[in-house]
Amino acid sequence: MIQDIRPEDIERESFRIIEEEFFARTGRHPVDFDAREFAILQRVIHATGDFSLTDSIRFHPQAIDRGLAAIRGGRNLYADVGMVAAGIGSKLQSAFCGRVLCRVGDAEVARRARETGRTRSETALEMASGDNVGIVAVGNAPTALLAAIDLVRQGTFAPDLIVGVPVGFVNAAESKELLVAAGIPAITVLGRRGGSPIAAAIVNALLKMA
Amino acid sequence: MIQDIRPEDIERESFRIIEEEFFARTGRHPVDFDAREFAILQRVIHATGDFSLTDSIRFHPQAIDRGLAAIRGGRNLYADVGMVAAGIGSKLQSAFCGRVLCRVGDAEVARRARETGRTRSETALEMASGDNVGIVAVGNAPTALLAAIDLVRQGTFAPDLIVGVPVGFVNAAESKELLVAAGIPAITVLGRRGGSPIAAAIVNALLKMA
Repeated sequence: MIQDIRPEDIERESFRIIEEEFFARTGRHPVDFDAREFAILQRVIHATGDFSLTDSIRFHPQAIDRGLAAIRGGRNLYADVGMVAAGIGSKLQSAFCGRVLCRVGDAEVARRARETGRTRSETALEMASGDNVGIVAVGNAPTALLAAIDLVRQGTFAPDLIVGVPVGFVNAAESKELLVAAGIPAITVLGRRGGSPIAAAIVNALLKMA
Repeated sequence: MIQDIRPEDIERESFRIIEEEFFARTGRHPVDFDAREFAILQRVIHATGDFSLTDSIRFHPQAIDRGLAAIRGGRNLYADVGMVAAGIGSKLQSAFCGRVLCRVGDAEVARRARETGRTRSETALEMASGDNVGIVAVGNAPTALLAAIDLVRQGTFAPDLIVGVPVGFVNAAESKELLVAAGIPAITVLGRRGGSPIAAAIVNALLKMA
């Protein structure tokens, strides 16, 4: 049965359903959660139609403050793939002083990746690390997340926040465990699940808060 | 433990793991499946890290043949959101004679949507319905899928295939049930789950076959 609803009410109704079902499913109430973490989780569930991500999402204690500081400070956001960049709301994006960077399709990246035998995703991330990047959002490539972790550990890259939700079967789960173990301010979803809508939802939730 | 693997081997290794685990989990063998349907399912699992979509994916019996005919005939592909368009592999896209259209961000669409009190997604779909669209790929908006179903039923829109995988809590599941009930050649994922990576994965699998 199709619900008749005005366009401007769809998102609000979706969020109401998520909140209602979330507490019915988990028996947990809003006061059990950090309100800002719940706002991000709610947007992730909205983007995926999937409550099960509740169990695997992880927030570093400084992640949200650092992400908001990056946005308010006008630092840039680096997206590992075009789908993440495309998923960041255009209205939100224009309210944001920094730029959304994505270099994975650049010819220079392809050339360097071929020369070094590395992936385009990690090459692009390394090339962007000098560009005043405040937030790194990885929705696809474990290699991009691994490159970001390496550069942060080496002290040559200092993003405020890593939104690290690569997806898949080769090194995705492992790269996210390493991200948490490294103690880097990050938001992630453990395991193989992840993807560009989750990365975009987390960034959009932070942009709305800021 | 991070696996050391060459960039060119990552996809092949992912597909190998999916095939191995799929049969370990389900006890079903490749011969139990239509080979082309399995190739699409495998790419969907690859894009989401999630085997559970196996139970909810649905193929109309003519869907794959019609999708391949649209691609080989050089008809255009309509994507409901930029994320779907961004997810269609650029190499694959350039091999494809048709164009990838996405109008949801157009100023004219926003103006008409405001005037009519409908969503931008459905307005954009309606405006594109005259543009020799062979494949409609909906990865986000139930309203776009509902608009496409309406136009097909009215006989004013004749895509070869609808890839209908909108996500969410308001009319997403209902729109996909309607798509199946209407008997339109379609590929869908029932329930609330869906999203642009699934839409893009289905289209990319078809482009690879063609």
